Amino acid sequence: MTMNKQWIYASKPNAQVSPTNFSLQEAAMPQPKEGEVLVRTTLLSLDPASRAWMIGPTYRPMLNPGEVMAGWGIGEVVVSNARNFEPGDLVSGDYGWQQYAALPARTLTKHDKRHKPEHILGALGITGLTAYFGLLEVGRPRPGETVLVSGAAGAVGTIAGQIAKLMGCRVVGTTSSADKCKWLVSELGFDAAVDYKSGNLHKAIKEACPNGVDVYFDNTGGEVLAAALSRMNVWGRVACCGAISNYDTATPTPGPAGVPGLLVTKRIRMEGFIVSDFYNRKREADTALAKWVTEGKIKAAVDVVEGFDKMPSALAGMFAGQNRGKLMVRV
Amino acid sequence: MTMNKQWIYASKPNAQVSPTNFSLQEAAMPQPKEGEVLVRTTLLSLDPASRAWMIGPTYRPMLNPGEVMAGWGIGEVVVSNARNFEPGDLVSGDYGWQQYAALPARTLTKHDKRHKPEHILGALGITGLTAYFGLLEVGRPRPGETVLVSGAAGAVGTIAGQIAKLMGCRVVGTTSSADKCKWLVSELGFDAAVDYKSGNLHKAIKEACPNGVDVYFDNTGGEVLAAALSRMNVWGRVACCGAISNYDTATPTPGPAGVPGLLVTKRIRMEGFIVSDFYNRKREADTALAKWVTEGKIKAAVDVVEGFDKMPSALAGMFAGQNRGKLMVRV
Repeated sequence: MTMNKQWIYASKPNAQVSPTNFSLQEAAMPQPKEGEVLVRTTLLSLDPASRAWMIGPTYRPMLNPGEVMAGWGIGEVVVSNARNFEPGDLVSGDYGWQQYAALPARTLTKHDKRHKPEHILGALGITGLTAYFGLLEVGRPRPGETVLVSGAAGAVGTIAGQIAKLMGCRVVGTTSSADKCKWLVSELGFDAAVDYKSGNLHKAIKEACPNGVDVYFDNTGGEVLAAALSRMNVWGRVACCGAISNYDTATPTPGPAGVPGLLVTKRIRMEGFIVSDFYNRKREADTALAKWVTEGKIKAAVDVVEGFDKMPSALAGMFAGQNRGKLMVRV
Repeated sequence: MTMNKQWIYASKPNAQVSPTNFSLQEAAMPQPKEGEVLVRTTLLSLDPASRAWMIGPTYRPMLNPGEVMAGWGIGEVVVSNARNFEPGDLVSGDYGWQQYAALPARTLTKHDKRHKPEHILGALGITGLTAYFGLLEVGRPRPGETVLVSGAAGAVGTIAGQIAKLMGCRVVGTTSSADKCKWLVSELGFDAAVDYKSGNLHKAIKEACPNGVDVYFDNTGGEVLAAALSRMNVWGRVACCGAISNYDTATPTPGPAGVPGLLVTKRIRMEGFIVSDFYNRKREADTALAKWVTEGKIKAAVDVVEGFDKMPSALAGMFAGQNRGKLMVRV
């Protein structure tokens, strides 16, 4: 009988997450109940939010040591005890870090096989939707405005920046190395990029954004947020998507000193969002993203790590800034 | 010949503003040019923003030592070199701390004498408009929601809280003494009030807001903002009106640690505003405020200090939390 390998969330990270916080276990193959579907995992997504789930409640309850590590995945239906699903279907859902999962059919999404699974998990999935709604609905850029994106070489950042270019904006990204800066400009069409580790961040953002910042798409929080606020224009908007700078540390940076003073004098709107809040308009976004990716107007950058055994090290690597685009593991 | 007494902004405060930062001088009576009006000051407004003007640019350029201290006032036209104004008219404008001012007619507003000058400078003026637009347009409370107001016993706070009551909300205020807490509840109809100096602020806000906070009208920033954020509900809104906790100190509090993390997980919108941004709808607000004040639905609390010589000490007293309602000096 085939066993099911699982990565267990074994211990709470003290500071930075490491592979020692996870343990591999073999469990019995899960049995789908009525209304459930047994799926075989093909790809598992690694997301900054994974780290946040380990330390407290977010938009999902806190994970507790001993549980299968949570994570989004895509794979194939093996057994279906639910209407509308049959073996061979390509489905995504909240798989967890495991090779097989028995999941309620209502929590799964069936996908068109003409799209690559890597893209479904990235630009055509939650990642792309997050960038789409966060930029367009929360940030609301207008043509000619300057859009600054932090974590710009990451999954959401790469897409948010490219959508902003399609909207006719000047787009500047921040990332953690000179190499990734070059990549953002030469491969993804950003107008400029700033290595936030290279020295005077305020000065670098000022030079890259000579007309100030109208929309700041914030994936990081921390010092980039503080610097961005000081460079925002009157009526600026900050779309708060995440705070990766504070997820993987025991010593989070203090809040930005410009809050609330700069918000008042510059009339800045800072707004947090969760992608699912916009799912009443998911069809519109799915259609737009599929068109842009299919036509090559958005490059769906994916960074695929091979091997289920690499899950923990891939997660740690993400916080070390190793990935370019959407990070996932092929199981 | 009558002289014009003026308070000069003499020196930059090192930490807390004190009367020694101002000096009284006598100048010649100003002569209105063509298009200008000579006004005699009746009342001068004291505002938290006055302190901010002394340390940097805000929505107005920074004041420099040697200049007449800036401030809003109301008074009577003495000489008019402008159409539409004549001696005896009741007018308000950017008078500065002086007994007489020659001001361009286009910068003055003429008022109906059936309203008290104290109210025109407070609930019926910029103070009331700030509360009105900040609460209704930025905070957007719905009936049954909980509205928390910081600096609740101050000029804007007293009005914002009362408008929120009229909107059918549960209204809680924070202020700096048990006496002012009692006053907010017994005189102004707040549902509860919290003395932020009395100990465990987080706990006190939690007890006063058992259903969480939906709208936080922030006049203070600092530790009350941090505590409010931790108590905000999903979809909460923070109307950033001012940051009085940080105006009169050499050691401003760090930014709130919940930014941006809590904004994301709770989808909070934090938005700064300046009242003049909403002046395209000033007539609507003027009408509503006049109706509420005239009908006694809003108590226009005013705190009038007698004597032009008291200007500097009144300003310092405001930062010590001495006023209840709109602070002004009768010249």
